[in-house]
Amino acid sequence: MSQKIVIALGGNALQSGKGPATAEAQLEVVKKTCEHIAEVAVRGFEIGLVHGNGPQVGRILLASETAKDVTPAMPFDVCGAMSQGYIGYHLQQCLKFALKKRGKDIPVATIATQLVVDADDPGFKNPTKPIGPFYTEEEAKKLVDEKGYAVKEDAGRGWRRVVASPIPKRVVEIDAVKTLWPTTITVSCGGGGIPVIEKADGSLEGVAAVIDKDFAAELLAEQVEADVLMILTEVEQVAINFNKPDQKNLDHMTYAEAEKYSAEGQFAPGSMLPKVQAAMKFAKANPGKKAIITSLDRAIDALDGKTGTVITFE
Amino acid sequence: MSQKIVIALGGNALQSGKGPATAEAQLEVVKKTCEHIAEVAVRGFEIGLVHGNGPQVGRILLASETAKDVTPAMPFDVCGAMSQGYIGYHLQQCLKFALKKRGKDIPVATIATQLVVDADDPGFKNPTKPIGPFYTEEEAKKLVDEKGYAVKEDAGRGWRRVVASPIPKRVVEIDAVKTLWPTTITVSCGGGGIPVIEKADGSLEGVAAVIDKDFAAELLAEQVEADVLMILTEVEQVAINFNKPDQKNLDHMTYAEAEKYSAEGQFAPGSMLPKVQAAMKFAKANPGKKAIITSLDRAIDALDGKTGTVITFE
Repeated sequence: MSQKIVIALGGNALQSGKGPATAEAQLEVVKKTCEHIAEVAVRGFEIGLVHGNGPQVGRILLASETAKDVTPAMPFDVCGAMSQGYIGYHLQQCLKFALKKRGKDIPVATIATQLVVDADDPGFKNPTKPIGPFYTEEEAKKLVDEKGYAVKEDAGRGWRRVVASPIPKRVVEIDAVKTLWPTTITVSCGGGGIPVIEKADGSLEGVAAVIDKDFAAELLAEQVEADVLMILTEVEQVAINFNKPDQKNLDHMTYAEAEKYSAEGQFAPGSMLPKVQAAMKFAKANPGKKAIITSLDRAIDALDGKTGTVITFE
Repeated sequence: MSQKIVIALGGNALQSGKGPATAEAQLEVVKKTCEHIAEVAVRGFEIGLVHGNGPQVGRILLASETAKDVTPAMPFDVCGAMSQGYIGYHLQQCLKFALKKRGKDIPVATIATQLVVDADDPGFKNPTKPIGPFYTEEEAKKLVDEKGYAVKEDAGRGWRRVVASPIPKRVVEIDAVKTLWPTTITVSCGGGGIPVIEKADGSLEGVAAVIDKDFAAELLAEQVEADVLMILTEVEQVAINFNKPDQKNLDHMTYAEAEKYSAEGQFAPGSMLPKVQAAMKFAKANPGKKAIITSLDRAIDALDGKTGTVITFE
């Protein structure tokens, strides 16, 4: 029996952070990313991909707002839907070829995905999710004054706009993902999914928010009954005392240990913390199964137990 | 046995043509459109939806180019992928609710779709596909001079930018659409699909072009072995001597009759002609099956044989 894995791709799997943030540059990074993903498929895993969209949706929004006197600006939910098409297209094009080079004829398909959130989620009152380009403090304050943006300093890298980051409750298109799963590598819940609220009459309505893609991946992993939730990021392992002389990289954390470290403030909010929280949620809901946090280029080694941080319930 | 139908939605199924072309206005039109589509589902048809994207991809491109000094402009293939996410999201959200109101719990899913075209397709040498907003003749000539656009006068409604419109050869994500088909209403090949060419090494590469959505729908209909190809447009029936005193609406055309009328120049290029051509192609490839050209609000009546123009091989 092949194992099911949901892989959450971080921002560095899509963009290099160097040079202009063009679609052409993204395509080159995605090509390399897909070489790694294809290797996971070669190992026999059934894969569901989830990706972030922070920089992309921010730029789509920026272009839309900049051009608003020429053509109407797009609401934020639509910008999210557009980013799913954009990134999913690159992933499915490149992954299909990376598989083909390895003699694997596996379909790859991107599903536009809505995720239901609660209208009264506390996230809407406390925006925390950074999107779009980095600003200087001065630029950021100008955006607060002129456009009413909420802004925050992002882990020493500069200032960014922040929007609400509600917890996802339901993957609307889960049936399609499940139907495709046995034969197809799906790209779904892109950017954490398009956030929608469910109204009294049962209809759905898009809202201005970004769902954390790690929580979306976790929800997906639960719903497809994945064996492994793999969260890929910039570092090979989760660490405590990060960037301090006594930094300690972790091979394994139990749920209780992760809870203790989180309470100590070991993990940066908006960065490692949501990844650890998503991993904890998966581990708690699935005793005996595991979440892994590692870097893209060590994904295979982590699946072999050579690196990465494994999070299990006990 | 339920019948399989591929429905190609024209521009008026997505936008009203009145008022500002906002996403909010599109959503209202899509809600009404999905009431009609849901009725087709209630009749027991298995549905695959294909939609156009001319105005939408034009506006995405316009916003992207207008904002290019602030954030890098997107290539045309990526704009197409973004339009698939945008329109597919609206369709799947509204159709799901329209079905729910009718007691039908049918999954609806949008698949980002690439369509392979020949790199040496003559379409690349003779751009014919209108995209984006309408311009005055003066504005259009300015765009030709300043941006190198190709422009054409569009059926008396004004001037528009035109890009290449190659013939699609293969739906890359056809396996996913087929896998979903028996259980799910798919939205695929949006905007005619993202046009890609196949390179010598087997990789795919996006190109600047718009595939006619009626040809894309026809190709999809062949590949899923649809019983009916339904092309929805602004008029209830195809006519000869259109807009003349002796206009004659057609209940039925054979392939040979359609060929004769086309040769006479009865159908406007870029408007009714590609719809008739797509219908002819389907009828020829599937003797005994039928294509129907009609309007959205008469779709059910056309399926009942009360209106529309039916095209069959003999």
